[in-house]
Amino acid sequence: MNIDSLNKLYVHELKDLYSAENQILKALPKMIDKCTDDDLRDALENHRKETETQVTRIQNIFKNMDFEPGGHKCKGIEGLITEGDELLGDVADESTVNAAIVSACQRIEHYEIAAYGVARAYAQKLGRQDDVKVLTQTLEEEGKADRSLTQLAETSINFLARAGA
Amino acid sequence: MNIDSLNKLYVHELKDLYSAENQILKALPKMIDKCTDDDLRDALENHRKETETQVTRIQNIFKNMDFEPGGHKCKGIEGLITEGDELLGDVADESTVNAAIVSACQRIEHYEIAAYGVARAYAQKLGRQDDVKVLTQTLEEEGKADRSLTQLAETSINFLARAGA
Repeated sequence: MNIDSLNKLYVHELKDLYSAENQILKALPKMIDKCTDDDLRDALENHRKETETQVTRIQNIFKNMDFEPGGHKCKGIEGLITEGDELLGDVADESTVNAAIVSACQRIEHYEIAAYGVARAYAQKLGRQDDVKVLTQTLEEEGKADRSLTQLAETSINFLARAGA
Repeated sequence: MNIDSLNKLYVHELKDLYSAENQILKALPKMIDKCTDDDLRDALENHRKETETQVTRIQNIFKNMDFEPGGHKCKGIEGLITEGDELLGDVADESTVNAAIVSACQRIEHYEIAAYGVARAYAQKLGRQDDVKVLTQTLEEEGKADRSLTQLAETSINFLARAGA
């Protein structure tokens, strides 16, 4: 791909996010299976459903632009998912596994927060107000998902304390 | 590695961050070389110096724990750096390159924000108050670096507008 304008960079960002979201959709059920905490499992299942909607939003943006969303693999998310898989493979204790899942998921959430933030800034500069609106919806959901994970880890279910020292 | 306690998970997080910071130290000069905007170049150079201090902070935490920081490669940051390299290789225009550098760097910043946030939460639960203090310093620097990049892209030097449509 020869990127020589903000418009092409925007299309690249959207393709990257489309690939990222689809990789996340495949990875989340494996994390949900390893979860031993009901509240964390519910939060991840809820975020899996949100992710399906987020994929549809990107598909709709591409439809309006007459572009196809495929043809690119997001290597950033690929690395984060590999890292998470390896970490969960090393965890040998039922209460520690939930803290490790939060660690892996927060890295993924923050990737999305950065990437959607960048995509929204491009949409704004390109005057694509409808895109700004839907990208903001997703960005707010990602921020909320990240804060929920922090809250779950630190206060509600307190599995950090249960994991012990 | 057999991770069966929060303490071991904390050591793993610190090793991951140590590897991440060292990979970033190697990657930043290449990005700085490709930069065609003076303000962005200064911001990245400033962050490169901060990163050196952040590496020293992790080394000091390991020294106090009688652990060695090496022996682990952070695959998350490896993927993000590969992705950034590929994106910059595809950019064929001097004004678009700065927007692409910001995009790659914000993904890296957010990885660090997530990972330091997790490490600090573990340190807090483990009662390691000295660690909490230095991890907070780094976390604040990463947040500031991310906000500076947003500001540079959106307002000050306005290279998004110059990249055009």
